Amino acid sequence: MRNEINIGLLGFGVVGSGVAKILQDHQEDLHHKLGVPVKIKKVLVKNLHKNRETTLSLETFTDNLYEVLEDSSIDLIVEVMGGTFDAKEAIESSLRAGKGVVTANKDVMAEFGPGLLKLADENKCDLFYEASVGGGIPLIRTLEDGLASDRIRALTGIVNGTTNFILTKMKHEKMSYEDALAEATALGFAEADPSADVDGIDAARKMVILASLSFSTEVRLGDVFVRGMKEIQEGDLELAEQFGYTVKLAGSAKKNEDGIEVAVEPVFFPNSHPLASVNNEFNAVYIYGDAVGETMFYGPGAGSMPTATSVTGDIIAACRNLLLGVNGKRLHAPQYERKVKSDSNKFARYFHRIRVRDEVGVLTKLTSIYSKHGASLATVVQHSDKKAADADLIFITHQISRQQHLDIVNELNETPKVIGVLSHYRVEGEE
Amino acid sequence: MRNEINIGLLGFGVVGSGVAKILQDHQEDLHHKLGVPVKIKKVLVKNLHKNRETTLSLETFTDNLYEVLEDSSIDLIVEVMGGTFDAKEAIESSLRAGKGVVTANKDVMAEFGPGLLKLADENKCDLFYEASVGGGIPLIRTLEDGLASDRIRALTGIVNGTTNFILTKMKHEKMSYEDALAEATALGFAEADPSADVDGIDAARKMVILASLSFSTEVRLGDVFVRGMKEIQEGDLELAEQFGYTVKLAGSAKKNEDGIEVAVEPVFFPNSHPLASVNNEFNAVYIYGDAVGETMFYGPGAGSMPTATSVTGDIIAACRNLLLGVNGKRLHAPQYERKVKSDSNKFARYFHRIRVRDEVGVLTKLTSIYSKHGASLATVVQHSDKKAADADLIFITHQISRQQHLDIVNELNETPKVIGVLSHYRVEGEE
Repeated sequence: MRNEINIGLLGFGVVGSGVAKILQDHQEDLHHKLGVPVKIKKVLVKNLHKNRETTLSLETFTDNLYEVLEDSSIDLIVEVMGGTFDAKEAIESSLRAGKGVVTANKDVMAEFGPGLLKLADENKCDLFYEASVGGGIPLIRTLEDGLASDRIRALTGIVNGTTNFILTKMKHEKMSYEDALAEATALGFAEADPSADVDGIDAARKMVILASLSFSTEVRLGDVFVRGMKEIQEGDLELAEQFGYTVKLAGSAKKNEDGIEVAVEPVFFPNSHPLASVNNEFNAVYIYGDAVGETMFYGPGAGSMPTATSVTGDIIAACRNLLLGVNGKRLHAPQYERKVKSDSNKFARYFHRIRVRDEVGVLTKLTSIYSKHGASLATVVQHSDKKAADADLIFITHQISRQQHLDIVNELNETPKVIGVLSHYRVEGEE
Repeated sequence: MRNEINIGLLGFGVVGSGVAKILQDHQEDLHHKLGVPVKIKKVLVKNLHKNRETTLSLETFTDNLYEVLEDSSIDLIVEVMGGTFDAKEAIESSLRAGKGVVTANKDVMAEFGPGLLKLADENKCDLFYEASVGGGIPLIRTLEDGLASDRIRALTGIVNGTTNFILTKMKHEKMSYEDALAEATALGFAEADPSADVDGIDAARKMVILASLSFSTEVRLGDVFVRGMKEIQEGDLELAEQFGYTVKLAGSAKKNEDGIEVAVEPVFFPNSHPLASVNNEFNAVYIYGDAVGETMFYGPGAGSMPTATSVTGDIIAACRNLLLGVNGKRLHAPQYERKVKSDSNKFARYFHRIRVRDEVGVLTKLTSIYSKHGASLATVVQHSDKKAADADLIFITHQISRQQHLDIVNELNETPKVIGVLSHYRVEGEE
């Protein structure tokens, strides 16, 4: 029987220092919950000589990964260093050394999750990753345990705090994209290089993790259809508002007999949809289960302390398992074979904004293209400016396949008198 | 090593039949998740001769509890019979027989939870009760595991589906209380005797369960301040709307150095508050943690399949523990001594609706009463009707103690020219 649990912390940045703070501030609570104290034995950092605000002793810090991994008194590794390859190697080495791992690393889990979980199983170690998705919201645990008995059919969610912050500022304070991004950076929500956020890659990684778990199947990053924030054209947010929608960069995942579909894209949410009012850096995920129906989980999607809360929740779970001697007993193998829907099997409503020469007959021409492709229209609006030679037409379709949508957009772009499809969006809802 | 797990189901009503359906429909998924099949070996019912739609064989059913408890092949008892005393005895007998228990019974858990959890510990059995609160929303698990590392400071939530359904119909469809209740009964949301719902007792029981767990302290039903739906007077919902609020029967629990406070009462939520737009039979709980900040969990608060999802989630967790041989290893003892705040230490904003004789000087008299009790006012509005001799005054206070609020209401009721304080509400928010 262990009389304490020792942790090796890899990384002491925003999340790592938060984890250290919770473990120290809540030491009594943890001792009560687990029956033994939890201690940070070693902390791996890049630069030993940096000034750090911490009550941990200087000897705790090291810049040598192997000093942590080879310390046999360390039971559990907490990987919060970020990045992909170094972190992946560190996790692998930890598992091979028989140490359980808690990680907040969505990049690693999205790309190498299945292999790492298998390695964990082989080495009879726990590998927990709650903090990789949804910051402080316990989503992974909800999918693994709370809804374990249900069949998840679909997820829709705002899983990237940075882009949601930017879109909120653009909508509510009429900020430009650049100003909103600058504010997100200043507040620490956006990385120095924000491209993974704004291009939708960060959200796509999180959707890979959520979809794999929800559908018990392998999902690859390449399976995710990704469109980033740059697809949002000037005037689109205002147009959305005119029609009663709010634009969110959202992830979605669905499953039926035809297979799975996973996407990250800017989506028009009806203002009455609860995700439309999830603002700033907050995240929220809607989960639709066969039996449970619809549930939603909302909370801070990023930030030092919320993310550290998730990491520490995992640490407690891993410690419990260590103390009970049942670490590494989760079955991670997917139940279903990977099967991805084709574009002909993905159905949604679409919003098309089309710039045309404002000439007689153009509307008839365009509606005939929709009919030809079997798409029925819910809304048709022409925005003309008397002084201009051009007009914008807005079409909102009923449910069509993504293939129909793509075919229509292609044909529209090749039609004389059509200057171009300025923008297009999936519209949330089933009508 | 067990090669199957056998379940004894106590009760085959709305929830019990849902549990049976999930266990049968998802048998393959469960087998994959657990590695062994899960079977319903016995079902306890009151009336053996009732016609039931089920694929379970007739011999599975019994009307004798001891036939279930004495079946040594049964590992786990699922108590979904409802009621208090019989259910409590059944749970106790199961635990004494060394069988783990999953229950959906909020009445039993709110009143006898601490004793039963202790008995479970003594008998090295699991006792899980996710379905006792929030229907399909995994709230207990979130508090026990997901937010295990955080210190919960406050909860606010809609935890009774029936009253929320009634209030939604009254607000959005201008239904009378009686008609809305009749519809709730027809849809199966309300019990034949709806008093536990409308009087707030059902919600109070759920708040006892949530508060005990969140604050790791004993909370008794008598500690909860309860006001039911009957406190809502005619015209109050419309008045709330005029001032930008929505009335919800809400539970709240807070903790600070002075102790805990738990209440169930009709509350004015600003329309911008996410709980204001939780409609119909849905439940939602806001949780505020030191580290995580604010999170919200939303889902169906009642209904056969959602509640059965929670029960089955617990069954899976209990089965895992049984298979790993670590059942009954949760520490349930509360960490902190029970300490309940006095009314002088409970702070909130209040809405007062006061009927007065419409005479000169009455407003000055009333505002002087607030000043005398140290209450500052955020809003003062006089609603007069030229033809009537009476007028309604509306006062919304800044934060005051409940004691101040009670003293003011008492003094108002004794003031000449005041016909009476028609209604009063806590107002959510801290300004």
